[in-house]
Amino acid sequence: MNLNSHTGDDPPAIDLNCDLGEGFGRWSMADDDALLDVVSSANVACGFHAGDPTTMRRVCAGAVARAVTIGAHVGYRDLAGFGRRRIDVDPDELADEVTYQIGALDGLARAEGDRVRYVKPHGALYTTTVTDPAQAEGVVTGVGRFDATLPLLGLPGSHLLRLAERAGIPTVTEAFPDRGYTGDGHLVPRSEPGAVLHDADTVVERAIRTATEGKIDTIAGTVIDTPARSLCVHGDTPQAVTAARRISDGLAGAGVRLLAFAGDHR
Amino acid sequence: MNLNSHTGDDPPAIDLNCDLGEGFGRWSMADDDALLDVVSSANVACGFHAGDPTTMRRVCAGAVARAVTIGAHVGYRDLAGFGRRRIDVDPDELADEVTYQIGALDGLARAEGDRVRYVKPHGALYTTTVTDPAQAEGVVTGVGRFDATLPLLGLPGSHLLRLAERAGIPTVTEAFPDRGYTGDGHLVPRSEPGAVLHDADTVVERAIRTATEGKIDTIAGTVIDTPARSLCVHGDTPQAVTAARRISDGLAGAGVRLLAFAGDHR
Amino acid sequence: MNLNSHTGDDPPAIDLNCDLGEGFGRWSMADDDALLDVVSSANVACGFHAGDPTTMRRVCAGAVARAVTIGAHVGYRDLAGFGRRRIDVDPDELADEVTYQIGALDGLARAEGDRVRYVKPHGALYTTTVTDPAQAEGVVTGVGRFDATLPLLGLPGSHLLRLAERAGIPTVTEAFPDRGYTGDGHLVPRSEPGAVLHDADTVVERAIRTATEGKIDTIAGTVIDTPARSLCVHGDTPQAVTAARRISDGLAGAGVRLLAFAGDHR
Amino acid sequence: MNLNSHTGDDPPAIDLNCDLGEGFGRWSMADDDALLDVVSSANVACGFHAGDPTTMRRVCAGAVARAVTIGAHVGYRDLAGFGRRRIDVDPDELADEVTYQIGALDGLARAEGDRVRYVKPHGALYTTTVTDPAQAEGVVTGVGRFDATLPLLGLPGSHLLRLAERAGIPTVTEAFPDRGYTGDGHLVPRSEPGAVLHDADTVVERAIRTATEGKIDTIAGTVIDTPARSLCVHGDTPQAVTAARRISDGLAGAGVRLLAFAGDHR
Repeated sequence: MNLNSHTGDDPPAIDLNCDLGEGFGRWSMADDDALLDVVSSANVACGFHAGDPTTMRRVCAGAVARAVTIGAHVGYRDLAGFGRRRIDVDPDELADEVTYQIGALDGLARAEGDRVRYVKPHGALYTTTVTDPAQAEGVVTGVGRFDATLPLLGLPGSHLLRLAERAGIPTVTEAFPDRGYTGDGHLVPRSEPGAVLHDADTVVERAIRTATEGKIDTIAGTVIDTPARSLCVHGDTPQAVTAARRISDGLAGAGVRLLAFAGDHR
Repeated sequence: MNLNSHTGDDPPAIDLNCDLGEGFGRWSMADDDALLDVVSSANVACGFHAGDPTTMRRVCAGAVARAVTIGAHVGYRDLAGFGRRRIDVDPDELADEVTYQIGALDGLARAEGDRVRYVKPHGALYTTTVTDPAQAEGVVTGVGRFDATLPLLGLPGSHLLRLAERAGIPTVTEAFPDRGYTGDGHLVPRSEPGAVLHDADTVVERAIRTATEGKIDTIAGTVIDTPARSLCVHGDTPQAVTAARRISDGLAGAGVRLLAFAGDHR
Repeated sequence: MNLNSHTGDDPPAIDLNCDLGEGFGRWSMADDDALLDVVSSANVACGFHAGDPTTMRRVCAGAVARAVTIGAHVGYRDLAGFGRRRIDVDPDELADEVTYQIGALDGLARAEGDRVRYVKPHGALYTTTVTDPAQAEGVVTGVGRFDATLPLLGLPGSHLLRLAERAGIPTVTEAFPDRGYTGDGHLVPRSEPGAVLHDADTVVERAIRTATEGKIDTIAGTVIDTPARSLCVHGDTPQAVTAARRISDGLAGAGVRLLAFAGDHR
Repeated sequence: MNLNSHTGDDPPAIDLNCDLGEGFGRWSMADDDALLDVVSSANVACGFHAGDPTTMRRVCAGAVARAVTIGAHVGYRDLAGFGRRRIDVDPDELADEVTYQIGALDGLARAEGDRVRYVKPHGALYTTTVTDPAQAEGVVTGVGRFDATLPLLGLPGSHLLRLAERAGIPTVTEAFPDRGYTGDGHLVPRSEPGAVLHDADTVVERAIRTATEGKIDTIAGTVIDTPARSLCVHGDTPQAVTAARRISDGLAGAGVRLLAFAGDHR
């Protein structure tokens, strides 16, 4: 099942997702409350790469108060590396780690009267499961064992979403308005020029175009179709929060409604 | 609600509970499979003091295969101390840590077709919540937020169970056949003589007496009533596994049926 | 041996110490470089409550570049609680944890051409070792085993310094210009009014008075003698950095020289 | 500098090294005392993949009592994976993690009157630094910053030892009497037949041949030269301890003296 199709929405609608709850104990990463005012889906860290239980419950409470959808942002067990380093975890163990993290967040979401509504891998687990079928299978297995109706949010064309579909798990794809795309639809690697777009107006325009036309400009000068049902925004700096708010405002100004892809589960 | 009453059971019945899943990664603590053959309730470590996700799921699988009831053995976040050191956690944070742990285990139990059926604090959290109302309140809050119908297993007379009852959470009490009791019904501190009983026959007799008569001998030479609905056995040494099996066999020989207190929840 | 005596210094001199390197991985706590410009002694987190190895080495490099003295800021093993929660660690194990942390920082200090020059407990270990002789003994043992000539920095009248002196370990005392003192020379507990002084001018004046006269005003309206050889300043907020700089400037304006108590070890 | 050459030793001599101190808190892995009776060099876990401070100091005490040389067994930060999973750590951060671990163990060795005398990577860090120059460089940098006279123990032909030599760090090579070798001198991968030799007599013979002739049999039926100055034995099962003792006894019976490669540093 693919939850992306929203053709013919009138008015057009799209989801905005953002990583949240990325503090740990006394340390914080972003202004969670400010971001919850902006997005429709919250990727909540589950304690392995970030996210202590109290932070997790508070983000859930803030999400519930604003009708933002709660998703499990599962990562490698790596607080020191913030989940941004690939770990060669055995896929069977990875599956269990994913189930553990979803369950933990689900408990805290339940404490606030809600549940986990989708799953998105974080950091190195996100990028690894794009290209590594064994690790992708681990994530898919871990999600499926918890609840095979829980959608996986990820990159179009990734092994993760391909294996999820094969397993009967719903999939949702996302686009990155502030990232450059190659002519064949991949993200420009961060080590190369054009990887990140810094002009705020351009980023807003790209977000609107993806939301209204399902298209995205590439660094090759071409325009490609993107099936994205969600746009990923970042919030780990004060500037990023401002940029996220501009995207949200820009979408509203263009008549695009924010609509969580898993929002109708409630 | 108090789940202890089993007066008039015919034949008499009691629960046997044991700590399980206390390995972490490559390290193991006990022979989980051998213990699952003996007990009716499994206190499964949830990752804070012990218990990695794969171990947790395997214990759940073994419990399901033997119709053993799965309980969340929640502890302080302290792998280095195995949860045996009191930590002055803020009670609000403790509540969230408890919810987190129950949720995590519940996810893995769900992966094996079951659910968490009760909660028991581990180690220093167990002893602290006997006498410390603030920490006890933290545990009770954490359980109640997850599911206020989930029984808490603990010591008769503890703050933990008193506060749980006040919060409308079911309570179950346990006795320790291999521990000495003072005349007023408390456990003899481990630092004092008579704290631990080493004679296997004596331990078996005490278990039978608690199960059939609801009574326990004290070091004062008196006999006291104990409302225990469960007997706690240990498994952290090969000798302990043997001792647990002897208790189980002794109970069977005395016509006492093993019956999980939360077993009828399935 | 007591390193506090600096009577008759001409010009008067005092040490300024501050907690540094309190980030972990992607998380940061304070502006370490700004603080290194202000203080004469750096209490560097050693990885147990905060401080990853790369942060630790960078702080050492910054300290070396500015001739700031490096101290080991040892804490409980508690990243989630930032070392601010008492843990009932066995004193023998605490001793080993202290030695471990000093050794780890010493390795990284050595990588930058310097060494650890003193030790100061952090957070809950600091407050616990004021009043708890067993935990204080653990710290003293851990320091003494590493190097019994390494001074311990702490609170006047604490068990920590008393036991250090008994063990032949040099001691240095500190005062807190931004904290209220009771008539008998203890810090006003944070839960009571007057615990923290917020007026910047007052704090600067107190710092100068301690540095030049060895005296401090109490909330009882009296003035007491303080043997402090060091003043502790805080840096965990942008405001705190500004306040620390004002103290440093105020001391300079009053003709007080900054002088690390362990600076002559180099 | 290469410490391997011991041609013309009379009687022949070799080092026996073994991983030790691989417990963590309440968990243990091997019988450290039994192994210390057998080997001449102890690779002591430093807290990142295993090894709490108290275990580390106890192993150091046991090593000092038996004149066994203490080495730092540095690993990835991965207690859950026991350091057996590759982590894509940034090489600069890896260098600092290596320095941190050596320093920590050195502090505890110092507490027992000794020092760290060599360094050997553990598990996935060992195998990764055989073939990955960036990770190998991280380890070499971390060792060199601590003390560039500290030998690195590793596999002949590894990037680790090649880069160490280039950096002027002493190198020592080891052989594995219980592992199969390919015709070109590499270890047979564990996934292939012949990877591990189970016949105790054969293993003892191979150890003696390496020690006396500097040669080892391959699965290709050929015999190759090995410059090994040390033999690695395992101790993570009771059977492994027995096997290690048989090797030690076999070497003694063949007139080979146990001689730590770094033993003359004391």
